[in-house]
Amino acid sequence: MIFVNGEENENIKASDRGFQYGDGLFETIEVQDGKPLFLGQHLSRLIKSCKRLKIPEPDADELTRNVIRVCKNTAHAVLKIIITRGMGQRGYFQPNPIIPTQVISINPYPEFASEFSSLGVNLRFCETRLSLNPSLAGMKHLNRLEQILARAEWDDAAIHEGIMLDMQDRVIEGTMTNLFYVKNNIVYTAKLSYSGVAGIMREIIMELLAENNQPAIEHDFDKTNLLSADEVFICNSIIGIWPVNTIENVFYSSQRPITERLMTGLKGLKEKELQHD
Amino acid sequence: MIFVNGEENENIKASDRGFQYGDGLFETIEVQDGKPLFLGQHLSRLIKSCKRLKIPEPDADELTRNVIRVCKNTAHAVLKIIITRGMGQRGYFQPNPIIPTQVISINPYPEFASEFSSLGVNLRFCETRLSLNPSLAGMKHLNRLEQILARAEWDDAAIHEGIMLDMQDRVIEGTMTNLFYVKNNIVYTAKLSYSGVAGIMREIIMELLAENNQPAIEHDFDKTNLLSADEVFICNSIIGIWPVNTIENVFYSSQRPITERLMTGLKGLKEKELQHD
Repeated sequence: MIFVNGEENENIKASDRGFQYGDGLFETIEVQDGKPLFLGQHLSRLIKSCKRLKIPEPDADELTRNVIRVCKNTAHAVLKIIITRGMGQRGYFQPNPIIPTQVISINPYPEFASEFSSLGVNLRFCETRLSLNPSLAGMKHLNRLEQILARAEWDDAAIHEGIMLDMQDRVIEGTMTNLFYVKNNIVYTAKLSYSGVAGIMREIIMELLAENNQPAIEHDFDKTNLLSADEVFICNSIIGIWPVNTIENVFYSSQRPITERLMTGLKGLKEKELQHD
Repeated sequence: MIFVNGEENENIKASDRGFQYGDGLFETIEVQDGKPLFLGQHLSRLIKSCKRLKIPEPDADELTRNVIRVCKNTAHAVLKIIITRGMGQRGYFQPNPIIPTQVISINPYPEFASEFSSLGVNLRFCETRLSLNPSLAGMKHLNRLEQILARAEWDDAAIHEGIMLDMQDRVIEGTMTNLFYVKNNIVYTAKLSYSGVAGIMREIIMELLAENNQPAIEHDFDKTNLLSADEVFICNSIIGIWPVNTIENVFYSSQRPITERLMTGLKGLKEKELQHD
């Protein structure tokens, strides 16, 4: 089911700047029992990124109403919200006025996701690099060719995610996930000042850690740091947390107390979300 | 007028990966007297880039027929061809099979372009940088947020183009043009190994220079080189060549023999294209 500007519609205009230039943003949100989880955080990031791209911000109340209506009667699904700069003349110059396009769609939930949460996953390093650009870093924008090229590097169902490095050999994230590692009881994740997506699940995990007096350290690290870690896990809003069993030839211990504590914490937060009205 | 997969249609599917991820390529071509200029070069770049992105290449003969049909009876216009990876499930992984979407549109020609060819133009430097990534460099792909942010930096009709630097302070190109400069009778332009679009007009100009035993030198240069140049010009397939009068506070001489020789050469090439059947 797809809703364009509030009406059920499979089509958008070919002249939409989302199609012409990737001129827009998106959010993907897990829906459980009709409820989009952590919606407030997602809308807040969307609005912040609209400001950065100078796209008029959607009205949060109206967008929430649209989203709630679409999610009603949905047991378990993935909600996707796309906001673009709308239609325009040919050329990069912004239309005036800008009338954003809003696309809300509901997709099946990938049920394997919870299986991998218990079993753990296997990762590889991608050849395709993330480019450095502070003007785009952190946002979940529609320019995703780097991730597409990286994800096209393997077609082996036993490999569940690819790790992307930036142009300076720093480990940043997975093609569709953020990445954390634990060394000597300290949790680390990449700084996202020059590339990467500042994921909502990453933010939630960092809040859980901070509440637990074990704040994650955002720093620059490379393959070597990652391969000598005690625990590694990846996350996003759809899969939650996936513990990592292997990265290429390196095996991680199945003893992963911090990852498991976070998974329990996340479960608690989700239950709270579902109780809350 | 817009044609989607050969049929007149203003809409594309919202699930098209061009819209979801900017997963595609484009070409913009000047049409004169029903003839798309330098079509062979444009299609050849498009096909090369499809190979790089692993999008099945369009059949050049069929695409040519579609294009010729759309351009018929058009006096002067801009033709735009978009090829995307087509529809897919949610997620970066490529659909199998990939059935590309082909969008051909005709837009009005910006008639001011020829005026600026005689009068010259004024440029500024943009704050927004081009990020470095050899896997995307050179291609005219649909991930254009950097250009959009750069073009949004000014709204002054007296400034005709903005110059973009990369993350390492190298001058690369304009938001919608390639850039050349002349110093002591040698013509220089940026290497495009890490960023930038390898424009067809840039290629044509380099061929003209080579035929004239004055091959352009592709090298790394910065603002200082550019500001002390004897001549500067910008180019693309729609505007042809625009001589540069000023960059911010720096004025260039209206004596620009090499730029003018190239403009004459280009005029000759266009006339040949128009005679040729």
